[in-house]
Amino acid sequence: MPHESSAAPGAPPHIGELPAGARNAITDVPGVRVGHCTLADGAVQTGVTVLLPNAGDPYLDKVPAAAAVLNGFGKSIGLVQVDELGVLETPIALTNTFAVGAVAQAQIRQAIAAHAEIGRAWPTVNPLVFECNDGYLNDIQAMAVGETHYLQACAAAGVEVAQGAVGAGRGMSAFGVKGGIGTASRIAGAYRVGALVLANYGTPAMLTVAGNRIGPALVQRLAALAAADAGPEKGSIIMIVATDAPLDSRQLGRLARRAGAGLARTGSVYGHGSGDIALAFSTAYTVPHDAAAPMPAVAMVHETALDPLFHAAADSVEQAIVHALWHAETVSGRDGHCRRGLLALMPELNTAD
Amino acid sequence: MPHESSAAPGAPPHIGELPAGARNAITDVPGVRVGHCTLADGAVQTGVTVLLPNAGDPYLDKVPAAAAVLNGFGKSIGLVQVDELGVLETPIALTNTFAVGAVAQAQIRQAIAAHAEIGRAWPTVNPLVFECNDGYLNDIQAMAVGETHYLQACAAAGVEVAQGAVGAGRGMSAFGVKGGIGTASRIAGAYRVGALVLANYGTPAMLTVAGNRIGPALVQRLAALAAADAGPEKGSIIMIVATDAPLDSRQLGRLARRAGAGLARTGSVYGHGSGDIALAFSTAYTVPHDAAAPMPAVAMVHETALDPLFHAAADSVEQAIVHALWHAETVSGRDGHCRRGLLALMPELNTAD
Amino acid sequence: MPHESSAAPGAPPHIGELPAGARNAITDVPGVRVGHCTLADGAVQTGVTVLLPNAGDPYLDKVPAAAAVLNGFGKSIGLVQVDELGVLETPIALTNTFAVGAVAQAQIRQAIAAHAEIGRAWPTVNPLVFECNDGYLNDIQAMAVGETHYLQACAAAGVEVAQGAVGAGRGMSAFGVKGGIGTASRIAGAYRVGALVLANYGTPAMLTVAGNRIGPALVQRLAALAAADAGPEKGSIIMIVATDAPLDSRQLGRLARRAGAGLARTGSVYGHGSGDIALAFSTAYTVPHDAAAPMPAVAMVHETALDPLFHAAADSVEQAIVHALWHAETVSGRDGHCRRGLLALMPELNTAD
Amino acid sequence: MPHESSAAPGAPPHIGELPAGARNAITDVPGVRVGHCTLADGAVQTGVTVLLPNAGDPYLDKVPAAAAVLNGFGKSIGLVQVDELGVLETPIALTNTFAVGAVAQAQIRQAIAAHAEIGRAWPTVNPLVFECNDGYLNDIQAMAVGETHYLQACAAAGVEVAQGAVGAGRGMSAFGVKGGIGTASRIAGAYRVGALVLANYGTPAMLTVAGNRIGPALVQRLAALAAADAGPEKGSIIMIVATDAPLDSRQLGRLARRAGAGLARTGSVYGHGSGDIALAFSTAYTVPHDAAAPMPAVAMVHETALDPLFHAAADSVEQAIVHALWHAETVSGRDGHCRRGLLALMPELNTAD
Repeated sequence: MPHESSAAPGAPPHIGELPAGARNAITDVPGVRVGHCTLADGAVQTGVTVLLPNAGDPYLDKVPAAAAVLNGFGKSIGLVQVDELGVLETPIALTNTFAVGAVAQAQIRQAIAAHAEIGRAWPTVNPLVFECNDGYLNDIQAMAVGETHYLQACAAAGVEVAQGAVGAGRGMSAFGVKGGIGTASRIAGAYRVGALVLANYGTPAMLTVAGNRIGPALVQRLAALAAADAGPEKGSIIMIVATDAPLDSRQLGRLARRAGAGLARTGSVYGHGSGDIALAFSTAYTVPHDAAAPMPAVAMVHETALDPLFHAAADSVEQAIVHALWHAETVSGRDGHCRRGLLALMPELNTAD
Repeated sequence: MPHESSAAPGAPPHIGELPAGARNAITDVPGVRVGHCTLADGAVQTGVTVLLPNAGDPYLDKVPAAAAVLNGFGKSIGLVQVDELGVLETPIALTNTFAVGAVAQAQIRQAIAAHAEIGRAWPTVNPLVFECNDGYLNDIQAMAVGETHYLQACAAAGVEVAQGAVGAGRGMSAFGVKGGIGTASRIAGAYRVGALVLANYGTPAMLTVAGNRIGPALVQRLAALAAADAGPEKGSIIMIVATDAPLDSRQLGRLARRAGAGLARTGSVYGHGSGDIALAFSTAYTVPHDAAAPMPAVAMVHETALDPLFHAAADSVEQAIVHALWHAETVSGRDGHCRRGLLALMPELNTAD
Repeated sequence: MPHESSAAPGAPPHIGELPAGARNAITDVPGVRVGHCTLADGAVQTGVTVLLPNAGDPYLDKVPAAAAVLNGFGKSIGLVQVDELGVLETPIALTNTFAVGAVAQAQIRQAIAAHAEIGRAWPTVNPLVFECNDGYLNDIQAMAVGETHYLQACAAAGVEVAQGAVGAGRGMSAFGVKGGIGTASRIAGAYRVGALVLANYGTPAMLTVAGNRIGPALVQRLAALAAADAGPEKGSIIMIVATDAPLDSRQLGRLARRAGAGLARTGSVYGHGSGDIALAFSTAYTVPHDAAAPMPAVAMVHETALDPLFHAAADSVEQAIVHALWHAETVSGRDGHCRRGLLALMPELNTAD
Repeated sequence: MPHESSAAPGAPPHIGELPAGARNAITDVPGVRVGHCTLADGAVQTGVTVLLPNAGDPYLDKVPAAAAVLNGFGKSIGLVQVDELGVLETPIALTNTFAVGAVAQAQIRQAIAAHAEIGRAWPTVNPLVFECNDGYLNDIQAMAVGETHYLQACAAAGVEVAQGAVGAGRGMSAFGVKGGIGTASRIAGAYRVGALVLANYGTPAMLTVAGNRIGPALVQRLAALAAADAGPEKGSIIMIVATDAPLDSRQLGRLARRAGAGLARTGSVYGHGSGDIALAFSTAYTVPHDAAAPMPAVAMVHETALDPLFHAAADSVEQAIVHALWHAETVSGRDGHCRRGLLALMPELNTAD
């Protein structure tokens, strides 16, 4: 799937000191794949994004993971079990707030299709679906996302990640402009860290890019177009962090919490109405579903060696947010609502850095 | 709705020192109503139970609440937001594990039907659905529960609460016999505390009723019938606690954690595979959705006066579990699976107490 | 150190199905040692109990651990860091509420004496001190515990564990009678689980031993002696759980939470005023302080194999509480206050089981 | 107590959009007072800072509060009980890591001196002591802080707050330069929010002031002086947030978590070795110790009105950090170690903004 805009956007500023991976995408963590299914038809501007944590079947070989709820005004599902067991066992799905139920059902059916024992001799499966509210552009009440869209996103998964107004990001807004999907990666010594965000948060005045407070200028630009929508932040951001470093779920929880540092640097204070949630997972090993299979014996990263990974997580998240803004083209949706792409509004950023 | 069994069960033992309310049901907390929708047709043995926290619209007048996850091997949804905001804003729904998505969608549609602004000018709504896995009796893979069943359960809500193999309890098992819905209440000084459980946990050997270890005898009885299913605990229990005491969400979290004491007294150690989750709410006041409405000024219960409520919560939960076992009649379901009612298996308990 | 009472107490009932270890003590987990320093002089009735998790230096070879706060009305210290890092790095100390500071300082000095780098080239050390309030028998305001008492308890550590009114248990009360130190162990398949409790909680009416509600009879017995002190529960219980099973800190947190099941079975609802805190640790491996040392590569127990350990933890804690009550002899302390030993009050229990 | 530097530092940049209070200090929240006791004698460079939350006795009239542990590599005490009960009941003390025990004992003795019933008819008191490790400048092994220093800091409390290398901040380092105490405040509509920080974190390369990455220049400046100390972050930061807005403890927890946003904007990713802990409290009401006293009936701030307070908390914390750096003069301590004041090293910042 190509980038959704034919003209390559101007290079956004590079965040932090660490180098990016080859794709500057979460798929620089080997084995990770991302797929989108985009619904863009009139008032329906929404979709599903799926992240496959590795090449295997995550139900049979569960993926160590942990979440961090920075601000829990959100409806993501699956976190109770991730907190308890420290693993995920399905692909990671992102979609709009009212589609969580449909996508969860799709994940259940997908797991049953692969393993008829689920819900019979085996226990159930834990759907893992994250969401943001795209109701400004998207007719979210239409509940247009169905199970098939989840499966299409899975089928489309690959290592090239389209960004901006695609997949679950199709209808999302951020800082009063078009938000959506962004991704980035960093190399931290022997390890790779990648982030994928679904950015749907922030008021225009807040926007800060690589330390530069662009907010005031953005407010003026929007005011000139009478394009500003007043009112408080009602968005959310989902931040998925992947690494090939061998970390246990406690350490992954520490990594996930660093997403909050990257987010804060863009101007966010984790607004009341913003469901700001991070999930981190490791691709370095898996935990077998089969109790008779040998458990992995893994030497985890020494705790004192985590700081580079923490920086990589924060930087990747911040960079992924910047990428989302840089790639998101202008989208019009329900009731004539329109969100402009940031670069369309502020073309001078196009040559940033 | 009458009790599901025509013959009244023998009086189960009374747990603890505190008196029960008039109905010995969660509906002794004024305003609380409970409704069931039961699906019982061959291999489909499942359903939905709904608990309406008060007479009002919980979206407009949000209900103070808090959850306690005793063991998070579960797929209940809505807890992230309850943890953050300390309120619930929909009815409380209980169903089987694979129906959570469908019921969540029903709650969303119900909220939109009442308030067209949701997902437009207003933020979204937080579905609150709890689940246990009824896959032993029920063909859970059939995903038979639909949105209409949730609405039927809402429509059926009243103060008389059918117990046992009804609603979400239809297909549940506990201690190797038939589990399901149970309810009870206690009077603690000026306040009422009620519990409603969806009991689907425990191995036969564990069963303890009012301190009596019935487990060994139950194991023998099941062995004589070749009715024991081997294998570890794969169940769950949901415990809803209501009170008319004015408690804030922090205090309600303390109350919810006491459900774990009542549960433990029945023999549970919160088994690995059992999603043991409690939610407590107060009917003493509500929090307005409308930011312009006055906030309630409530004198909460002094912390040192909580102990009677803690006892009432633990006793109500234990009593509600006993009630579930006492009322649950024998049910047969998918693939010839059968769970006998406890009193059918051990009629000598019928005169207990 | 011999048992503190010359006459062996009657055998208390055996809790649960699992067999006890050779000593029925936490020291059945190989490497674990326990030492007491008892202060018993007039109004001063208090002390320190130390638990050495293994034969090594816990600062150099940190011990995987996790805590569970069942009710946080307590002043124990060190849990913030245990929660974050999943290890402990000092002996585990238990003492009275007002001695926590002195014992923490003793732990710091002990660590510095062993490692002059601490607080210089190396980071600091995390004291780990648990407490209950022994102010009924002990003149807690005298703050009689000093650093030397901690060191004496360390020096006295061995595998034979005195129980009852010794060490930190000297001044503790439980259920209106004499409480204190108790220990027990269970064998769960290939693994051992042990518990050591500092029992200082419960009102007389609650007391339940092996499912038998002894409370009402105890209330009568105390009333006959005019020995009951009215008023709410103001105690606490500390529950230390050790295992030689290879568990990571997340799993140890799960194990620690099962202490609450054992506690509940004795009649507790985790009273408002009772700081009920559990800590679990594993002796199966350690985590090196030295970042250059190889990290352990340990195959943890498969999650589905945890249930026997959960039962062992709950049973060990319940058994340890019973042991504390069975061993605690009558103690008199400040202002003529007296707590009778349970067996002194109810000698008929002496032949229990 | 006057500012510790005779020459007023150049005005630091103003953070954010909200105006500061009259003193730009946490004492702009009416009733809050701050006192320092500074120990500066050769190798001993340390101290105690005390924050009195209101004019009353916090034991009798407990102060609603909540904490947020951003990174739990820390030894602060008292948080277990604050988490459970949502109140603090002593002054808030800050000191060095090895002085926590001594200061806790001082708080206990202070409370007993005021209320002889504590530890007798009344329950115990919960000391609340935060710490950072000042071992680079201070001979922390000397354990020079005693109980008297805590009392001196209490006695010195007032509304004028000395900043920089004073009180608990005397020996602290931040970003490779001198850290210490900083404070700031913001006006958010009808409410005031103030912050006081004990800043002892960060590597030079990270330093970001008001969005400007000063780190690289600072690294160069330190290198030229051969003043850089290599090695990872081993610091910590304590962030106390006060407000006169009526918030319950759940809402105060939300406020406390926003301290992490302000901290992140200075370059922090909450490094592994940094104990980054925030505590927020409200002065709008108190909770009586006396169970017979009427409980307050307070209309809390509507949840949707929290965003200005969240911005005020983040901005106050970031500003307080900047103030700490701006005020901290060069200090020399143990073994010839020296930390330069930031403005001494980079005088060009003196005219910033």
